[in-house]
Amino acid sequence: METKLPMRANRLEALGDGIFAIAMTILVLELKLPDIKGNSFHDFIEGFHENGIELMCYVISFIVLGIMWFGHSMMFQFIGRSNRYFIFLGVLFYMFICLIPFSTRFLAQNFLSWQNISFYALNLSLCNIAIYAQWSYGIKRVSLLERTITNEVKKHSRFLFLISPAVYAIAIIFSFCLPLISIFIFILTPIVYLLPDKIDDYLP
Amino acid sequence: METKLPMRANRLEALGDGIFAIAMTILVLELKLPDIKGNSFHDFIEGFHENGIELMCYVISFIVLGIMWFGHSMMFQFIGRSNRYFIFLGVLFYMFICLIPFSTRFLAQNFLSWQNISFYALNLSLCNIAIYAQWSYGIKRVSLLERTITNEVKKHSRFLFLISPAVYAIAIIFSFCLPLISIFIFILTPIVYLLPDKIDDYLP
Amino acid sequence: METKLPMRANRLEALGDGIFAIAMTILVLELKLPDIKGNSFHDFIEGFHENGIELMCYVISFIVLGIMWFGHSMMFQFIGRSNRYFIFLGVLFYMFICLIPFSTRFLAQNFLSWQNISFYALNLSLCNIAIYAQWSYGIKRVSLLERTITNEVKKHSRFLFLISPAVYAIAIIFSFCLPLISIFIFILTPIVYLLPDKIDDYLP
Amino acid sequence: METKLPMRANRLEALGDGIFAIAMTILVLELKLPDIKGNSFHDFIEGFHENGIELMCYVISFIVLGIMWFGHSMMFQFIGRSNRYFIFLGVLFYMFICLIPFSTRFLAQNFLSWQNISFYALNLSLCNIAIYAQWSYGIKRVSLLERTITNEVKKHSRFLFLISPAVYAIAIIFSFCLPLISIFIFILTPIVYLLPDKIDDYLP
Repeated sequence: METKLPMRANRLEALGDGIFAIAMTILVLELKLPDIKGNSFHDFIEGFHENGIELMCYVISFIVLGIMWFGHSMMFQFIGRSNRYFIFLGVLFYMFICLIPFSTRFLAQNFLSWQNISFYALNLSLCNIAIYAQWSYGIKRVSLLERTITNEVKKHSRFLFLISPAVYAIAIIFSFCLPLISIFIFILTPIVYLLPDKIDDYLP
Repeated sequence: METKLPMRANRLEALGDGIFAIAMTILVLELKLPDIKGNSFHDFIEGFHENGIELMCYVISFIVLGIMWFGHSMMFQFIGRSNRYFIFLGVLFYMFICLIPFSTRFLAQNFLSWQNISFYALNLSLCNIAIYAQWSYGIKRVSLLERTITNEVKKHSRFLFLISPAVYAIAIIFSFCLPLISIFIFILTPIVYLLPDKIDDYLP
Repeated sequence: METKLPMRANRLEALGDGIFAIAMTILVLELKLPDIKGNSFHDFIEGFHENGIELMCYVISFIVLGIMWFGHSMMFQFIGRSNRYFIFLGVLFYMFICLIPFSTRFLAQNFLSWQNISFYALNLSLCNIAIYAQWSYGIKRVSLLERTITNEVKKHSRFLFLISPAVYAIAIIFSFCLPLISIFIFILTPIVYLLPDKIDDYLP
Repeated sequence: METKLPMRANRLEALGDGIFAIAMTILVLELKLPDIKGNSFHDFIEGFHENGIELMCYVISFIVLGIMWFGHSMMFQFIGRSNRYFIFLGVLFYMFICLIPFSTRFLAQNFLSWQNISFYALNLSLCNIAIYAQWSYGIKRVSLLERTITNEVKKHSRFLFLISPAVYAIAIIFSFCLPLISIFIFILTPIVYLLPDKIDDYLP
C-alpha cells in the first residue's frame, strides 16, 4: 500500500514541450500582414518596415522561448520523477511561459514605452524565477533525482537561472530613461547564450 | 487470431497531454491588450485594472487545468492499456477540457452573473464527472490495469474526483445570491490542492 | 551502406497525435460567446439556443475526430515502421483532418443547406479514404509491419475504414431533400461506434 | 563531475513534432469561409472559387511542411544527442517553420505579385538552409551521432537539403516576369518528392 508510484517526470516534460511548441507558434499568429502599396522594391521594404518592430519582437521572443526550453530540458536531465508540489511549480512556470505571446504583443504595440518594456521584462523574469523555484524544490527531494548533483552544478545552475531576472531588472531601469538600451538588452540575450559556458562540459 | 494487441494507454495520455497543453495556451489567446492612456504608473495600473478580471479568470483556469492534468496523469499511473470504451470516455473528458477556454471567456465577460458562474462551474464539474467515469470503467477491467489497486486507493480516488463537483455545486448555489463567494470558491481550489494529502504517500 | 534505418513509425504517430489534439481544441476557438440579454433562466436558455447549432456541430466533430484518432491509433498497432510513401499518405490524411474545424464552421453556418452538409460529409469521407489508402499501402509492405495481419483483420479493417464514406454518401443524397436526416446520420455515428464489434476481441 | 549528460535528441525532436503539428493546423485557421450566394451547384462552385487560391496555398504549404517534417525526422535517425549549439540551430529552423503560416497567408493575399512569391520562396529557402546548418553541425560532432554516416549519405543529404533553395531561387526569378511559373514550381515540389530516390534504399 505504501509502494511508491513511478511518476516519471517525462510526462510533465511532454506537457511542457507541448506548451513551448504552442507558445512559439502562437507568436506568429499575432503578426499582421504588411500593407504593401505598390509593386516596387521600395514599396516592399516600406510595407515590412511598418511591422518591422513586430517581426523583431517575434524573433526575440522566439529565441528567448528556445533558450528557456533548453533550461527546462536541462532540468529534466537531473530530475526524473515528479510529485504534487513539483508539478504545481511546473504549472506556475508554464503559466508564465504561456503569457509570453501576450506580452510580446504588448511590447510590439509600443516598444519604447517603459510600461510595455517593464511588463515584458517582468514576464520573462517571472518565468526564470518560477523555474528556479521548481528546480530548487526538485534538487532538495532526493527521491525525485535521476542522478546526483554536485555542488558545482548547483551553484552554476543558480547563476544561470537567476542571471536573467537580474539583467531584466536593469532593462526595466533603463526603460524609464533610455528605452532603446532595454531593447538592446533583449536583443543581446540570444547572443550571450552562444558564448562558451562551463555547462558545455556536461553536454555531448 | 485471438492474440490481444498491446494498446498501450500512453498514446491516449499523449493525446491528452497535447490537448491540455493547447487548452492552457489558448486561454491567453483570448486576453485583450490593456488600453493604456498615459505614461504614468497610475495609467499603467488603470489599464490593467480593466482587464484584471480577465487575468484573474486566466490564472484560475490555468491552475485548474494544471490540477486536472495532475489527476489525468495519476490515472495513467494505474491504467496501462486502453480499449474502445476507455478511449470513448477519454474523448468525452477531453471534450469538456477543450470547452474550458470557452467558459473562461464566458465567465470573464460577466463574472458576477449567476449564468456565467453556473456555466463555468458546470463545465468544471463535467470534466471531473467524465474523468471519474473513465477511471471507474478502467479500474473495473483488470486487463487494462498496470498495477493492482487497493480498496483504499479506490475510495480515496473517488473522493478526490467527486469532491470538485460537490464544491462547484455549492458555487452554483451561491451564484444566485452572493456571486463573490462563488468566485472565492474558484480561487480557493488551487490553495486546497496544496494542502498535504494521503496521496503524497504514494508519490516520490 | 545498405543497412536500413529504423524509421520507427511512432514519430509519425506523435505528429498525428499533435494534429488531432490541435484540431480538436481549435474547434472550440470558433465558438462565439452567447448573447444573453437578461438575468432570468429563460434568457440563459435563449442565449445558448442561438448557438445551439454551433455547439452541436462542435460535439459531433469532436467525437468524430475521437473515433478517427482511435482508427489512426489502431493502425499503428500493426504498422511499426515508416517510409517516404507511407509518410506522404499520412500527411494527406492529416491534411483532411486539419480541414475538419474549417468544415465544421462551414456546417454550423448553414446546417440545413445541401452545400454545407455535402462539404462536411465529403471532408469526413476524404479523411477515411486517405487513411484507408495509407493502411492499404502499409500492410502490403512487409518491412513496415509490426506483427502479421490475418486475412480476417484485413477484411474487417477494410469494412471499418470504408463504411463511413458509404454512410456519408447517403448523408449527401439526403441533404438535397431531407437535410435533417443527414444531420441525424452525423449524430448517429458516435452511437454506432459504441456498439459491440469484432474488433473488441483484439483489445484488452 | 565531468560525466556527460545523456541529452537525448528525441526531446528536441518532440518539440519539433509539436511545432510542425501546430504550424500545419494553424494554416487552416486562416481560411475564410466561402460566401455562397444561392442554393445551386453553380453558386457552390463560385463561392469556393473565390477562395480557391487560398485553398491551393493551404494545400501546397501543408505538403511542403510534411516534406520538411520528413527531412527533420530523417535527421534524427542519425543524430541521437544534442547540445547547446545544435539546439540553437534547431530553434532557428523552427522559427522559420513557424513563419510558414504567415507567408502562406501573405502569398494567398496576392499570389501573382513578385513580392509575395519572393517572400514565400525566401521563407521556404531559409527553412532548408537552417536545417542544413543544423545537420552540418550535427554530423561534425561525433558525440551527437547515433550511427556512422557514410560519405555517400553526407553528399546525398547535402544535395537534398540544398536543392530546394536553388529551386526556390528560380521561382523568385520567374516571379518578376512569369509569376505563374513560380506557382507552378511550388505545386511541383510535392510531385518531385514522390519520385523514387536513392534515399529509399535506407528506408524500410
